[in-house]
Amino acid sequence: MFQRVLVANRGEIALRVIRACRDLGIGVVAVYSTADKDAPYLKLADEAICIGPGPAPESYLKIPRIISAAEITGADAIHPGYGFLSENADFAEICRECDIEFIGPPHDAMRKLGNKNEARKMAKAAKVPVVPGSDGIITEDSVALKFAREAGYPILIKAAAGGGGRGMRVARDDKSLIEGLQSARQEAEAAFKDGSVYLEKYLEQPRHIEVQLLGDREGNVVHLYERDCSLQRRHQKLVEESPAPNLPVKVRDAICESAVRLAKAAGYYSAGTCEFLLDKQNNFYFIEVNARIQVEHPVSELVTGIDLVKEQIRIAAGEKLRFKQKDIVHRGSAIECRINAEDPANNFQPSPGLITTWRVPGGPGVRVDSHASVGYRVPPNYDSLVAKLLVFQPTRAEALATMRRALREFAVEGIKTTIPIHRDIFNSSSFIEGNVDTTFIERVFLNPQVNEKK
Amino acid sequence: MFQRVLVANRGEIALRVIRACRDLGIGVVAVYSTADKDAPYLKLADEAICIGPGPAPESYLKIPRIISAAEITGADAIHPGYGFLSENADFAEICRECDIEFIGPPHDAMRKLGNKNEARKMAKAAKVPVVPGSDGIITEDSVALKFAREAGYPILIKAAAGGGGRGMRVARDDKSLIEGLQSARQEAEAAFKDGSVYLEKYLEQPRHIEVQLLGDREGNVVHLYERDCSLQRRHQKLVEESPAPNLPVKVRDAICESAVRLAKAAGYYSAGTCEFLLDKQNNFYFIEVNARIQVEHPVSELVTGIDLVKEQIRIAAGEKLRFKQKDIVHRGSAIECRINAEDPANNFQPSPGLITTWRVPGGPGVRVDSHASVGYRVPPNYDSLVAKLLVFQPTRAEALATMRRALREFAVEGIKTTIPIHRDIFNSSSFIEGNVDTTFIERVFLNPQVNEKK
Repeated sequence: MFQRVLVANRGEIALRVIRACRDLGIGVVAVYSTADKDAPYLKLADEAICIGPGPAPESYLKIPRIISAAEITGADAIHPGYGFLSENADFAEICRECDIEFIGPPHDAMRKLGNKNEARKMAKAAKVPVVPGSDGIITEDSVALKFAREAGYPILIKAAAGGGGRGMRVARDDKSLIEGLQSARQEAEAAFKDGSVYLEKYLEQPRHIEVQLLGDREGNVVHLYERDCSLQRRHQKLVEESPAPNLPVKVRDAICESAVRLAKAAGYYSAGTCEFLLDKQNNFYFIEVNARIQVEHPVSELVTGIDLVKEQIRIAAGEKLRFKQKDIVHRGSAIECRINAEDPANNFQPSPGLITTWRVPGGPGVRVDSHASVGYRVPPNYDSLVAKLLVFQPTRAEALATMRRALREFAVEGIKTTIPIHRDIFNSSSFIEGNVDTTFIERVFLNPQVNEKK
Repeated sequence: MFQRVLVANRGEIALRVIRACRDLGIGVVAVYSTADKDAPYLKLADEAICIGPGPAPESYLKIPRIISAAEITGADAIHPGYGFLSENADFAEICRECDIEFIGPPHDAMRKLGNKNEARKMAKAAKVPVVPGSDGIITEDSVALKFAREAGYPILIKAAAGGGGRGMRVARDDKSLIEGLQSARQEAEAAFKDGSVYLEKYLEQPRHIEVQLLGDREGNVVHLYERDCSLQRRHQKLVEESPAPNLPVKVRDAICESAVRLAKAAGYYSAGTCEFLLDKQNNFYFIEVNARIQVEHPVSELVTGIDLVKEQIRIAAGEKLRFKQKDIVHRGSAIECRINAEDPANNFQPSPGLITTWRVPGGPGVRVDSHASVGYRVPPNYDSLVAKLLVFQPTRAEALATMRRALREFAVEGIKTTIPIHRDIFNSSSFIEGNVDTTFIERVFLNPQVNEKK
């Protein structure tokens, strides 16, 4: 087992990894930018090292500084969290070349899966259904128009190196397709330094279902069942849950088995997620692999009793998986709300600042993962997640009731948060019945006029 | 089901009952003394009614005011929490006479079990082993001396109406027996308005093992396994856990079955606890029934997945138990630390006052039940519990690690708390090995000189 793990991240996921290290009895080193220098979680590490100024490219994305911090502090492994360098295969490789284990997947699998076009090819080869799409990168408008005629509108334009909705467009006719290709390439180039885009058939009002995977270096891969992450705003997840409501067992099993098949084909190990879209006829289509621990991983921890971050660390240290597929039992219902420092009444504008009241819910069936507290100043530099509020109960109906109660208890002042929209979601009859898709939030909550006109 | 439940208590257990009502979708009324008027949890009830000034006899113990509050607010049931009126059979009976259901056991069973001497008789009749003791109340010194000669010293003097260690003495010779009888009677008279005392053989360094029970009105009784509550200071529990470490399965089963037998014999329903002492040879002896929900009930909730307060409410509303004994599976290891506003460095002096920093632990395997937060002023009037910190993990070793981590995270300023002594306990090798008994805290932590002399 490792002696000391360096956490190359910030905020709640840094605290999450610190907790896992403590729970395993391993030493832990935190790094921070000057914008995070007063974050209380830094005191929970054995050591905290400043790696530069606030802008992420000067600190959390600066590979040499992170490697130096690990070498100075004698860390023998690095956990990248999510975001930042977590899916950067070069970083994973550099770590390993420096004899510092990267707590994540093998870098060659990351590289292949990180390119969505490559990932699609691997999925097809593993007999995992994919959304009908263009054969590779689109460089000629004529090829795009030909694909659109074959597959039919609407068509989705996606960045090959993309994520978080950047470089993504929906085209509903030839004109918007040609324009969208142009603007998506520019956005992708700016965001990822790679303007490559490809096309997919756009599914109307699909559900987003993803499968949590865990694999070891010996080729053993298991799934920890699915999460329904359909509740999104601009491709950013708001609510995640497991099991996916109203999902037939046969479909669930087929999705989970597909994900395992793909991971095995890719030679994947560590934690990872295989994302799918589900259409109204319960056909599922692979979209991408997230080669990292995800924000919503605690949902799967609650329903399986397995600590994913501890398992990531064990696997990175060379341990074999401690359970087989049949040992992993799905129990109860878990739901997560992402609480962001944003103002839902003002178009989700970021709301950084000093937290003056912070009373988190507690009691039975409630888990809170948060680095925030009274007196903490949410910096304007990074993503706006301030807390993950999770509930776990024997049934979904009970989980919904506990989430309503917990959202009522959660008191925050000083910053605006997404708590009010979560309160609305959990009182929505469509959501309560499990009738959700990826357009739900924007259709029902954010454009009620549009909705009424329908 | 009830329309509205009135919570006749304060602090963390009031919040715990409010949470259960919310989770069940039932309305809830809080009551408060003027000393608690600013407590944040009051806002989580649908209504909050002032029932008098700070001293408990003028508010939380004042039956007519509580009944009036229930009638004014249209509450059809009262949850008494623990302490205060929770084990007052007269209060239970008055509630029911006023057509307000008392969420607790039948008042006749409370009355019988509330008298420890009667409870002993019932236990003997149900073939539940009891500590060798005097036949009934001791009124004559000669009877006491005769019992001491038969059973042998040390002898324990106990108040028949007692609890919390009041009216209790250990006598090691004839002289201390006669003096102890006198002073115990005075203390019991002052505390309970009942000076009756009886005698028991005093067990040296026993363990305290208790069994969580749940019964319905149809005579079905199940146990939710045991808790080890050996870590006590002056008969006040500090740490509770389940399963009890190093307890042979056969002994555990026999204890649990004894508890069920006694509850059935008493016609008991609702939640309750049957307490036992365990000697070094793993002989167990019934000591008393706690006819209420207990502080440490969440320990059993974590290992069984059953919400005891929700079940209490369902049973009071006339529902049948929703599970049989075989459905109740014990999984993992749960431990609770009671965090009190007391100064362990200063003989556990109460430390009321304004909380200026309050950062609770979170993340995987952590549950916090607390009514406190930054800006909350701990009143000097009541018991000093400010938080229950619980952990739940697959194994005891993992639970110990998570508790150490959680205690490290827990940051409080403005008041003194028992967190430092808990940190010491969880680093103690005897405790880690599960070698504990009811004298452990005082032997190892509070009188190290005495300990060294041994």
